Amino acid sequence: MRVEVLAVGTELLLGQIVNTNGAEIGERLADAGFDHFHQTVVGDNLGRVAGAIRTAVARSDALIITGGIGPTQDDITREAICEAAGLEMRFSDEYADRLRAWWAARGREMPETNLQQAEYPDGAEMIDNPKGTAPGLRLRIGDCWVFALPGVPQEMLPMVDAGVIPFLLARAGDDTAVIRSRLLRTWGESESRIAQILADLFEDYDNPTVAFLASAGEIKVRLTARAADAAAAEALIAPVEAEVRRRLGTLVFGADEQVIEAIVLDLCRDRGWSLATAESATGGLVGARITSVPGASEVFRGGVVSYATAVKESLLGVDAAVVEEAGVVSEEVALAMADGGAAALGADVCIAVTGSAGPDDLERPAGTMIVAVRTPEEARALTLRLPGDRERVRTYATTAALHLCRLAVAGEWWGR
Amino acid sequence: MRVEVLAVGTELLLGQIVNTNGAEIGERLADAGFDHFHQTVVGDNLGRVAGAIRTAVARSDALIITGGIGPTQDDITREAICEAAGLEMRFSDEYADRLRAWWAARGREMPETNLQQAEYPDGAEMIDNPKGTAPGLRLRIGDCWVFALPGVPQEMLPMVDAGVIPFLLARAGDDTAVIRSRLLRTWGESESRIAQILADLFEDYDNPTVAFLASAGEIKVRLTARAADAAAAEALIAPVEAEVRRRLGTLVFGADEQVIEAIVLDLCRDRGWSLATAESATGGLVGARITSVPGASEVFRGGVVSYATAVKESLLGVDAAVVEEAGVVSEEVALAMADGGAAALGADVCIAVTGSAGPDDLERPAGTMIVAVRTPEEARALTLRLPGDRERVRTYATTAALHLCRLAVAGEWWGR
Repeated sequence: MRVEVLAVGTELLLGQIVNTNGAEIGERLADAGFDHFHQTVVGDNLGRVAGAIRTAVARSDALIITGGIGPTQDDITREAICEAAGLEMRFSDEYADRLRAWWAARGREMPETNLQQAEYPDGAEMIDNPKGTAPGLRLRIGDCWVFALPGVPQEMLPMVDAGVIPFLLARAGDDTAVIRSRLLRTWGESESRIAQILADLFEDYDNPTVAFLASAGEIKVRLTARAADAAAAEALIAPVEAEVRRRLGTLVFGADEQVIEAIVLDLCRDRGWSLATAESATGGLVGARITSVPGASEVFRGGVVSYATAVKESLLGVDAAVVEEAGVVSEEVALAMADGGAAALGADVCIAVTGSAGPDDLERPAGTMIVAVRTPEEARALTLRLPGDRERVRTYATTAALHLCRLAVAGEWWGR
Repeated sequence: MRVEVLAVGTELLLGQIVNTNGAEIGERLADAGFDHFHQTVVGDNLGRVAGAIRTAVARSDALIITGGIGPTQDDITREAICEAAGLEMRFSDEYADRLRAWWAARGREMPETNLQQAEYPDGAEMIDNPKGTAPGLRLRIGDCWVFALPGVPQEMLPMVDAGVIPFLLARAGDDTAVIRSRLLRTWGESESRIAQILADLFEDYDNPTVAFLASAGEIKVRLTARAADAAAAEALIAPVEAEVRRRLGTLVFGADEQVIEAIVLDLCRDRGWSLATAESATGGLVGARITSVPGASEVFRGGVVSYATAVKESLLGVDAAVVEEAGVVSEEVALAMADGGAAALGADVCIAVTGSAGPDDLERPAGTMIVAVRTPEEARALTLRLPGDRERVRTYATTAALHLCRLAVAGEWWGR
């Protein structure tokens, strides 16, 4: 079954709000096994909304429209449905009474414009909206089921879950497959290098398919299989996943929802080691990532943000002579910060970051970031040269610091 | 001039990433005064991408395509352009050399698949990509200018700013009205309360229009005017802006691109005060926000992330008896952290945060977050009860901490 999504709202086109509904509905359609090939956004314009509805109903089995069914004059989805399908507008006395009762229960008089929400294209069923006053609509146009839902995610998503997906699943027949994905998370190689390592593998497969997603230096490899049921989809993924893991080796650090900060905490916990941070150029980002994980306090003791050079010396005990000789942006200072952080925080492992985040150069060219990790077994530093602006450099350095800590705690030190 | 946007990527339809590019580009098109009536998303499917290109070029004066021009086998936008427009694919030896040089400069061998990025539909110009290796493309299909750009926002948006908007503006002619916006940033009241304070004002105006945008506790009021030129649009905005500022008073903390962390640094600099942080539940987020501002080092000395209680005592000198009596999640401890942070870091002003971020309750219900600020003049704490999950609670508390510091440094202490 082919389902598409139409978002109505000038505010989306003006960029005043981000269309998160598209991703939320898309995820639900994928989980249900529906094909989802098109998403469209149009503004609050009768002709363009009607035109988008005509295009969609001609090529899809179901259309989910979000937005444009509220009480104000720019809410025109009902009219556009009438225009696209050649339907008359009807008025529901029953729903008008429900609207009046909703307002009365809150001790307020209903603005008359709200009665617009009791209108419906001839033949449409109303869909209950437990979180708001605008009911949804469901009707058949040609061979396509059309749903009109509110644009507010908190109202719309429960209606998709309760009123749309089950309705469509019941009518989907045998052509509906289940889609399952496995996300393998990697760090340490470029997207193109990973793609090259795996290229020939996907000449042999179109089920599962492969996609590559890059974010902050991590490359995610997503395998997506389609089958009659979940077990069959998983069975298609398993041998391909095994081969991908075999080829990528330790580049793969986690799967699905496993983030690097949680993996670092788990590895430390397994070895009975406590963790600390000593950050300069990243200014607290590494600590913030680590403490985003619930229960981090079992392992993480805290950190020092030693932004001023004097703080590196006073709180981390970095020797002023080392700063003088090697410079603040040096592996020597990073290593001294890692040692000093472990001592100051009473931790076994310490991640230290110093560097020149930009836009101006600080001692060394902007983008030069240095990470050191110290464990009870060993200490090592690595100098990174990162492209991009200040935000990107800091984000990539933070991710790199967490990955280097993972390698260090696992005893897989770099540069050997 | 009518411009539309086509996003290519199966990951968008599967809901694996949110299409923030649509809003970012939409904002830029509105600022430039272009009409923007349609946005479309399709997956990595040759026929559907080509079909979407054909539809767009038939109804618009310009089409911006994002995504699908990377180095991997699922990047098919170049092919789809050739198919939609009946063009042959060419190969640029010059760009291939540039790609090889880019990799060589990083001391690595280029994967052969990257040469795909040196391909281009016959007649297309390459657009420089300063942040990455995939060049953009620009070509004319029928009466429509077509741009193909990377999907990664950090690469794509600078190319829109430098290579797309100015190019189109130069060809737009007289039909383009200018749109100008003023963003007033507020903190301290809900969106509905702000809307209520301003409601009657916008019964009298439809140019400028008003929109409300909420993010992490800040409410942004956007005034948007359309006029023949920038000066006329600004003149429409000015009296309405003045009235909005009069009504909202100190709720307004900044305008347009002014972020709270930069304002805090400016206020401290004006008073000749240095700044430090002492963070528990936010784990470094406040320091990370402050150091996101270039030049923060003139004011910001650093911070202590005192996640473990023992670190609050050892590095911040918080009295163990106070912790014992009042609990870690208390205004007493927050104030002691602020004093201790100022002393340890040698700073005039210190922002301290402690709390129970969730999901589990820590001493007090999850969402209870306590901020203290200490200046050379005074010290005060405030207890916040924040809704939402751990990430949201930490983000909102970070924003609140920065705002409370702004008020403190400006001498406008809360609770008086």
